[in-house]
Amino acid sequence: MSHDAHQAHGEGAHHGYTHHKDDHLRRLKRIEGQARGLQRMVNEDVYCIDILTQVSAMTKALESFALVLLDEHLNHCVAQAVAEGGDVAQTKLTEASAAIARLVRS
Amino acid sequence: MSHDAHQAHGEGAHHGYTHHKDDHLRRLKRIEGQARGLQRMVNEDVYCIDILTQVSAMTKALESFALVLLDEHLNHCVAQAVAEGGDVAQTKLTEASAAIARLVRS
Amino acid sequence: MSHDAHQAHGEGAHHGYTHHKDDHLRRLKRIEGQARGLQRMVNEDVYCIDILTQVSAMTKALESFALVLLDEHLNHCVAQAVAEGGDVAQTKLTEASAAIARLVRS
Amino acid sequence: MSHDAHQAHGEGAHHGYTHHKDDHLRRLKRIEGQARGLQRMVNEDVYCIDILTQVSAMTKALESFALVLLDEHLNHCVAQAVAEGGDVAQTKLTEASAAIARLVRS
Repeated sequence: MSHDAHQAHGEGAHHGYTHHKDDHLRRLKRIEGQARGLQRMVNEDVYCIDILTQVSAMTKALESFALVLLDEHLNHCVAQAVAEGGDVAQTKLTEASAAIARLVRS
Repeated sequence: MSHDAHQAHGEGAHHGYTHHKDDHLRRLKRIEGQARGLQRMVNEDVYCIDILTQVSAMTKALESFALVLLDEHLNHCVAQAVAEGGDVAQTKLTEASAAIARLVRS
Repeated sequence: MSHDAHQAHGEGAHHGYTHHKDDHLRRLKRIEGQARGLQRMVNEDVYCIDILTQVSAMTKALESFALVLLDEHLNHCVAQAVAEGGDVAQTKLTEASAAIARLVRS
Repeated sequence: MSHDAHQAHGEGAHHGYTHHKDDHLRRLKRIEGQARGLQRMVNEDVYCIDILTQVSAMTKALESFALVLLDEHLNHCVAQAVAEGGDVAQTKLTEASAAIARLVRS
């Protein structure tokens, strides 16, 4: 379903998040660094609890990234589709709800 | 506090998780790959919802890593300290509870 | 902010969820029953782990209720405000994002 | 499994949490009140977002109750079983890990 919805944008589409692409890439780069930091910690036999603290920080960073992306998606893709109305609007609302449910449950 | 507890192990200590170091490194390598995959998706203007799905999968992978690590920590470090008794046992139990709270809340 | 947004509906407003009021009340009645069940378990010295299992079930039930309510809110209140456009649309989108963030983090 | 573990305590067993029974009952009574408050809100057509805020508060209260109970369980039931050693210790550690995983994932 998300693929069809994507097609509706046409080629070369810009999504809500593309306005802040550099911000997102910087956040993700930092998260990638945290994943590498965890490997170094395991390799160096760092104390378990300190590794878990790092995992919690990384989970929070990932969560924040998801919430920013979702906010932009609601404000751009979903809002635009709803303003235009019709089936695409309904598809967008349904898939947004499903994505929110996955985030809340993960 | 976790630093003192660590010291109690002495130099070259082996924690619960060191028995499965390769497993852990493989998991973390895969998580690092997911972080790089997300950057590629943002770079290629992939549809927001598909990125969010990937974030949920990565969060779950991170959560599973934390739970495996915590289980080993309880079975080795905490169990050993409790068997020996005394202040270290209490410290380990307190810091394990705090780590669990951080995981539940993150 | 949510109060202003509410006022925008005028007196006797019907929100998205009012169409399924009986469903919601039934779900919440069951959740209230779970809270009472937990008190009975504590009173009867039921084994801790069994109480925790019941808490997890109750948390999931509460989460499902929130997700259904949020889905209806997006499909009715938010979609209607967006279709009408203007400041109210922006307010609704902002407060929906804030509510989603609270759910993801709780 | 948790039933067998319970039996190991014998009749009239006191678990870790029984020392703070009144505290727990007070917390659960408040949570039950929140569940009733939500029903009143739905009945009175309160704005969706305000209901969701209340659900987040209730989820946090439930989470805190679970964390306190788990902490007491680790400090009493699990610690005691580990100090005694043997199969019961292993059973307790395994079921504690499973309960933590359910809390982290719910």
